[in-house]
Amino acid sequence: MPKPVILDCDPGHDDVFAIWLAAGDPEIDLRAITTVGGNGLLTHTTYNARVVTGLAGITGVPISPGAASPLVRVLTPAESIHGANALGGPELPEPVVEADPRTAIELIRDVLDTAGEPVTIVATGPLTNIALFVRAHPERLPLIKEVVWMGGSTGRGNITPYAEFNSWTDPEAVAVVLGSGLPFTMIGLNVTHQVLVTSEVMARIGAIGNRTAAFGVELLAFFNATYERDQGMPAGPLHDPVAMALVARPDLVTTAATRIDVELHGTETAGATSVDLLGKLGREPNARVATGVDVEGFWELVEAAIRTLS
Amino acid sequence: MPKPVILDCDPGHDDVFAIWLAAGDPEIDLRAITTVGGNGLLTHTTYNARVVTGLAGITGVPISPGAASPLVRVLTPAESIHGANALGGPELPEPVVEADPRTAIELIRDVLDTAGEPVTIVATGPLTNIALFVRAHPERLPLIKEVVWMGGSTGRGNITPYAEFNSWTDPEAVAVVLGSGLPFTMIGLNVTHQVLVTSEVMARIGAIGNRTAAFGVELLAFFNATYERDQGMPAGPLHDPVAMALVARPDLVTTAATRIDVELHGTETAGATSVDLLGKLGREPNARVATGVDVEGFWELVEAAIRTLS
Amino acid sequence: MPKPVILDCDPGHDDVFAIWLAAGDPEIDLRAITTVGGNGLLTHTTYNARVVTGLAGITGVPISPGAASPLVRVLTPAESIHGANALGGPELPEPVVEADPRTAIELIRDVLDTAGEPVTIVATGPLTNIALFVRAHPERLPLIKEVVWMGGSTGRGNITPYAEFNSWTDPEAVAVVLGSGLPFTMIGLNVTHQVLVTSEVMARIGAIGNRTAAFGVELLAFFNATYERDQGMPAGPLHDPVAMALVARPDLVTTAATRIDVELHGTETAGATSVDLLGKLGREPNARVATGVDVEGFWELVEAAIRTLS
Amino acid sequence: MPKPVILDCDPGHDDVFAIWLAAGDPEIDLRAITTVGGNGLLTHTTYNARVVTGLAGITGVPISPGAASPLVRVLTPAESIHGANALGGPELPEPVVEADPRTAIELIRDVLDTAGEPVTIVATGPLTNIALFVRAHPERLPLIKEVVWMGGSTGRGNITPYAEFNSWTDPEAVAVVLGSGLPFTMIGLNVTHQVLVTSEVMARIGAIGNRTAAFGVELLAFFNATYERDQGMPAGPLHDPVAMALVARPDLVTTAATRIDVELHGTETAGATSVDLLGKLGREPNARVATGVDVEGFWELVEAAIRTLS
Repeated sequence: MPKPVILDCDPGHDDVFAIWLAAGDPEIDLRAITTVGGNGLLTHTTYNARVVTGLAGITGVPISPGAASPLVRVLTPAESIHGANALGGPELPEPVVEADPRTAIELIRDVLDTAGEPVTIVATGPLTNIALFVRAHPERLPLIKEVVWMGGSTGRGNITPYAEFNSWTDPEAVAVVLGSGLPFTMIGLNVTHQVLVTSEVMARIGAIGNRTAAFGVELLAFFNATYERDQGMPAGPLHDPVAMALVARPDLVTTAATRIDVELHGTETAGATSVDLLGKLGREPNARVATGVDVEGFWELVEAAIRTLS
Repeated sequence: MPKPVILDCDPGHDDVFAIWLAAGDPEIDLRAITTVGGNGLLTHTTYNARVVTGLAGITGVPISPGAASPLVRVLTPAESIHGANALGGPELPEPVVEADPRTAIELIRDVLDTAGEPVTIVATGPLTNIALFVRAHPERLPLIKEVVWMGGSTGRGNITPYAEFNSWTDPEAVAVVLGSGLPFTMIGLNVTHQVLVTSEVMARIGAIGNRTAAFGVELLAFFNATYERDQGMPAGPLHDPVAMALVARPDLVTTAATRIDVELHGTETAGATSVDLLGKLGREPNARVATGVDVEGFWELVEAAIRTLS
Repeated sequence: MPKPVILDCDPGHDDVFAIWLAAGDPEIDLRAITTVGGNGLLTHTTYNARVVTGLAGITGVPISPGAASPLVRVLTPAESIHGANALGGPELPEPVVEADPRTAIELIRDVLDTAGEPVTIVATGPLTNIALFVRAHPERLPLIKEVVWMGGSTGRGNITPYAEFNSWTDPEAVAVVLGSGLPFTMIGLNVTHQVLVTSEVMARIGAIGNRTAAFGVELLAFFNATYERDQGMPAGPLHDPVAMALVARPDLVTTAATRIDVELHGTETAGATSVDLLGKLGREPNARVATGVDVEGFWELVEAAIRTLS
Repeated sequence: MPKPVILDCDPGHDDVFAIWLAAGDPEIDLRAITTVGGNGLLTHTTYNARVVTGLAGITGVPISPGAASPLVRVLTPAESIHGANALGGPELPEPVVEADPRTAIELIRDVLDTAGEPVTIVATGPLTNIALFVRAHPERLPLIKEVVWMGGSTGRGNITPYAEFNSWTDPEAVAVVLGSGLPFTMIGLNVTHQVLVTSEVMARIGAIGNRTAAFGVELLAFFNATYERDQGMPAGPLHDPVAMALVARPDLVTTAATRIDVELHGTETAGATSVDLLGKLGREPNARVATGVDVEGFWELVEAAIRTLS
């Protein structure tokens, strides 16, 4: 039985591959896509979600826009990585998929209410929508199986020395979700920096031969170029689909139970995810953190999913 | 034409008088009551709102529960002032008013959508619901005329040396509303500590002679006793209805345009409202702050409103 | 027996009156003056101390420069109040008193070692020197009778809405001294804003008729002008000598035992002195705080002291 | 010409090897040892410095105690690593070396004043003494050639997820030294975790055959045992002598010019050293950070130095 999943995302190049993986993988039953301001403004991330679903022939999955702004802070989109429209590189076709009239909170509520079983939320952007849902509908938290989030790091960050972009964008949202009691797994840079878009990976995706893959290669070329310029990494790390891969194939990602706290008050380290791997702080574990990934298995999963699309 | 008003509150003894003032004053058209965790747990504040409306014969005003928890922090109800059920003192009758099935966010949205004119929000608890609405429905902000909030202080606080209780409970919500661009007026302790429930005031309310007033006197007796014990003030300050009074009779409260910033990061001063009355920080004003109140006029207003109730 | 006193100051108009009060009052035995960067750069405050002692005929009191910078933060002198040289207004005569070759820390150490009895430190600037002494010579703390500091506030501040200038300049130093176990009394704005340089006070000082008084009047005229411009107070508050007055005549200033904590981490409130007058935080008192001053008695004391000078 | 060096330390097992390296290496002219509270209380670290110099036959190097407490915070010694006396393991012989009567600040001042050339300060504990010297004697900073500090990390910490112990103990001192304009090199965990006390290293030290080496092996055995228990590292990292090695043989340690800021205000990350290796913050570099070490060359240097001792 495929697992019912809501994908909350801010496409974004790597979010696109999380969408395609969710739609194409047989273990995932993608029930809804909700969007959030993050890699780009909400108007862009919502538009992009509509574009890349339609292009890949993904229909029947409602797409609702959520929060335009982080819970408390001001949004600074990641233009140096994703470009001005959050999906730099290929020319974007007109979207053929319409947005759902419900807000993200309403759509999540409705999916949970009708699923008949607990639903997994995979979040690949700032956790704003999930935090708003936690505060608006605490009575529905038992309907959520778990939250799997791409964000944070056990070591260095990417937007500041110690903060990863999604966490830095909305650290208060991370705190809300961590404090909610929801089962929570964090897929951080320590793991996502292992799935690099090498020339071999590019060739492999290109060889799939369908429209989706061709569009994907254009995305990855842009992504690699900006990662090299901005982060000194000639092969960019394809962060977001690792979170979806964990849900599709839990054996691909190793995790450890741990305590995670997010820094809300530092002047140099806001958004840093403090992961107490050694258990030195004496606090109860509140999450699982990814510690490793089967890189070859991951790419096989992504490739197989894209092959099923248009 | 009376002004359409939504009252967001956490009753709480003084909130009750804000409810009654809103319902009884001819200048206010009370369209909805939304509740929030603050003086007490959300279950108590919602129950109390249902009790005190029914008791006063206020019908046709929908009451919806909002957020049980502050935006980011953990709630600590003000039991030393308001008692374990947030409305210590009188025996509470069974509520005859039901809660509305909509959430507070949904109710606010519906009131705004159907009002036909901009609506004033008077908030007399932590600003959690208003902050959630700002993030969930930024497209509706033009339908809000202004937010008038009882909270904060230009000087000393009451829960910590520099923080007032509503602001201390949810400082991040204050920051969200201050940053939203909504017209915002803060009625702080510097003004509300002028409207003291003296024995003369008690006598005056008691002399009204209806059921509402009798119940009110019981509330005030409890309130004065806890204020004396907790704050060393034998006559407690009836904070919340001052915010409603400003809307009903703007001439009763003097205000000044100023810059307000709320402390989110201090270890001793979290929730302190930093009000730059001298304009020394060089920032643009983002609010009005109450600087004085016509005490006699205020009590006349409250008395007159209660006289109209059951 | 007059009390042995070390005056640590940053002259500064009001510091000058603290110096003169210490030198002219029969209850004070002024053993040393140490200077600190605060109202002005250390070079200015040291120079000014040398000028105003010589001008007043105060000899035999060693003057040593201390810290040029706050313990951790960067100095921003109070030029809008005290002018570019920290003593705007009168033309300054060439100093006839030389600085002592010892550092402030060395001078304080030597005075303590030779006094034969515990010595009172009156501090009227940022507490940097005292904090450095606490860390450099913890073994000498029993030789200090108490620290009486002009700084902080129980209510509003003057450099930011909640911070007084001396505390804001070096909050970490305040924390060190508060945590040192030294008996500590804080004379804050809540009291010093009662001793205003009215035209009557100006006339009274002017009528003394000696050189010191004439110079003092020039200082006060400048001080009043800047206070009106910067703080909207036409009669400036003569903060610093209130601390010396408390030592000379303890009955002039009422105080209360309390808990004081200084905000080190706030973005809006750094340097705010959180004074728990109601004891709501459940912490042990660590200080006395001034709560009132005999204004007439204070001016008589100041006047009498200046009469004894040149 | 050997380089004149002051070693500021908190022995501590690994500090001992820094002392021995400084005393035994022909490129280092060890002029003074100053001690600070850190790995242990100041009384212990001073005592330990006296023990391990005398035991190794190091004479004529003055040893002065400095700060017992961090600049602003409260000391928590690293007992889980270094034991209750900061030098757990071997029985300590009675010290034959006396402490110098001068304070650490006075000793540093005197060494600088008489060296005839700029002096390098190697610091292997919290930077409290150096920060106090910076504030007490800013006029002497030109006499300091550079500060080389073992502390901080470019990645994970050891006392909290993001803070290294020396930095966590006194982050304000790190900020003072970083802001002083002194040339500054940080040797963090990212490099010191490469010089592990393997059984091969133990055997190699043991084979030296003198009294110092035999004592050293006892220290290392204790150190390895506590590191395994506390940090899950069966071979402990010998942090401190790497800083001395950089001075003795600059080619052994690779460094990069960078910006370092220390977190003073975080609740989870205080003391984290934010090292902007990618230059993304747009601030001027203010330090060098160690990025690699020649592990074999390091151990050769340590071994050679110990061979020259008793």
